[in-house]
Amino acid sequence: MTLILALDFGGTKLAAALVNIGSRKWLRYERRLSPANADASTDLEIMRSLIYSLLQDTKPSAIGVSFGGPVDASTGTVRLSHHVAGWENIPLKDLLEEEFRVSVGVDNDANIAALGEHRFGAGQGYDSLFYMTVSTGVGGGWILNGQPWRGVGGMAGEIGHVVVDPAGPVCLCGKRGCVERLASGPYMAQNAREVLETHKGGKVLRGLVGNNLELLTGQLVSEAAAAGDDVAREVLHKAAWALGVGIGNVANLMNPQRFVLGGGVTKAGEDFWRVLRQVARETALPEVDFEVVPAALGDDAPLWGAVAIASITSISNL
Amino acid sequence: MTLILALDFGGTKLAAALVNIGSRKWLRYERRLSPANADASTDLEIMRSLIYSLLQDTKPSAIGVSFGGPVDASTGTVRLSHHVAGWENIPLKDLLEEEFRVSVGVDNDANIAALGEHRFGAGQGYDSLFYMTVSTGVGGGWILNGQPWRGVGGMAGEIGHVVVDPAGPVCLCGKRGCVERLASGPYMAQNAREVLETHKGGKVLRGLVGNNLELLTGQLVSEAAAAGDDVAREVLHKAAWALGVGIGNVANLMNPQRFVLGGGVTKAGEDFWRVLRQVARETALPEVDFEVVPAALGDDAPLWGAVAIASITSISNL
Repeated sequence: MTLILALDFGGTKLAAALVNIGSRKWLRYERRLSPANADASTDLEIMRSLIYSLLQDTKPSAIGVSFGGPVDASTGTVRLSHHVAGWENIPLKDLLEEEFRVSVGVDNDANIAALGEHRFGAGQGYDSLFYMTVSTGVGGGWILNGQPWRGVGGMAGEIGHVVVDPAGPVCLCGKRGCVERLASGPYMAQNAREVLETHKGGKVLRGLVGNNLELLTGQLVSEAAAAGDDVAREVLHKAAWALGVGIGNVANLMNPQRFVLGGGVTKAGEDFWRVLRQVARETALPEVDFEVVPAALGDDAPLWGAVAIASITSISNL
Repeated sequence: MTLILALDFGGTKLAAALVNIGSRKWLRYERRLSPANADASTDLEIMRSLIYSLLQDTKPSAIGVSFGGPVDASTGTVRLSHHVAGWENIPLKDLLEEEFRVSVGVDNDANIAALGEHRFGAGQGYDSLFYMTVSTGVGGGWILNGQPWRGVGGMAGEIGHVVVDPAGPVCLCGKRGCVERLASGPYMAQNAREVLETHKGGKVLRGLVGNNLELLTGQLVSEAAAAGDDVAREVLHKAAWALGVGIGNVANLMNPQRFVLGGGVTKAGEDFWRVLRQVARETALPEVDFEVVPAALGDDAPLWGAVAIASITSISNL
């Protein structure tokens, strides 16, 4: 029996799973929240305890790792984490290979999730696709000709900081009207808050937070929009519009077969998807064909992507 | 001696050249304007006469073709020409292979020019680059991992119809604020004309056309801007801004090493390049490195690209 060990270092949680090659069901699975004051060494310690608990007396034939932050995939070295301190230049691949004596593949969560959806999810059978996650942030990962495309410096896929409205609000990155600035969950909440602070309306949305606007979240905006709230609908439509312009522009530039969209914001309902698809279609040239579909693997996309990269890594080391 | 025959079916001109493999100098070169009432068969007839005049008693080992319009590069079939009638679904590769009994490679001018710059021009040594032509239209072609990336339907590289200003003027394609709408030569002339019709200023520009605004061209806008004309500078800066936003967004998405820019508009001078590079740098994330450089092959880029594709075609047929 050939086993693959899949690891997911998320910003707030750690997960590990064991699977037989070829199977689509976890043999064993463990998951732990990252402590509030976590740093790289506490995260590594927790992950090691998950791994030993999963492996028991077995030995995997390869390990795949999804990391929630910039990674040099060619060396498997973490550049940094935006959420957890101390990850600067940690040679994660080397550490794991030394300890477990098997080949290890490491990549960032967006590239890994793209690979997972390509091999096991909504991208099966599509050799050229762009995966996007719309959640706390907005990121993306490429599969071109069946292979990850990471860019020359490993920075490809940054759809979150593509400008779609140069007259829009200022993003944390300093630019105006980035896709992420309009479509991420926290920014949708902020946009709704600003409207509610200065305008009337938004009755449903105000009700959901008992008039405490600090409690607004992207998910509440989605819920209120589904219930017909005027302010929430406006904010959600702007998010869908921004994603649609981004997708249409990407279609014109790269002409992939499919866009696969995951992350909490994409669960906002039919109205969100209708606006997004319509704007994407209008933004792309008529001759440019593509589909936009929801991701299929949900929260497990990074782990399944880790399985995929472990398989590639172990094959290329044969 | 191994000869390559390179053909360029432009919108308004036809060119053919013969070169020894490995040489960077044309052995023979001929060029003819396409007649005003040209259709596909007159263009083909003129090209055949150019070819026979070039070849004399020799036989090339392969033929490469640049076509100024959409092409299915996998079959070498022209889809259509936006400039010349009758090109719909012409199997150009098959026609030439039957007549000349050698392998033929055909692609559209933007992809071909990208290949030409990659092999022989400003992209030498850069395996991942985006070539852009900014002229009567704005188009682009990809080299990724040293190979052309044409997209699934052959439509990749359409930077001209990437939206950079959704509140901008309406483009022929129906959208607002496309890169081409702000940066192509004819649209720059139109934008200058509209300002001059409704505002004061633009003294130099008015002088250049003797107050006949119908005579404005993109080149005159560039010249007037270089001479300090206020209206021309504004229009040219907006063009450079649009290209800069487009390039910065592409850098975030694909992270190529280089952008190579050709076409008449890119000869607009230092000021144009300064604005373009600055906006591109500001639009890309700080971690995303790239260079923006002028194309090196000028009007011969399609012919040199045709040499490159002929070499690839003949190797893959060995």
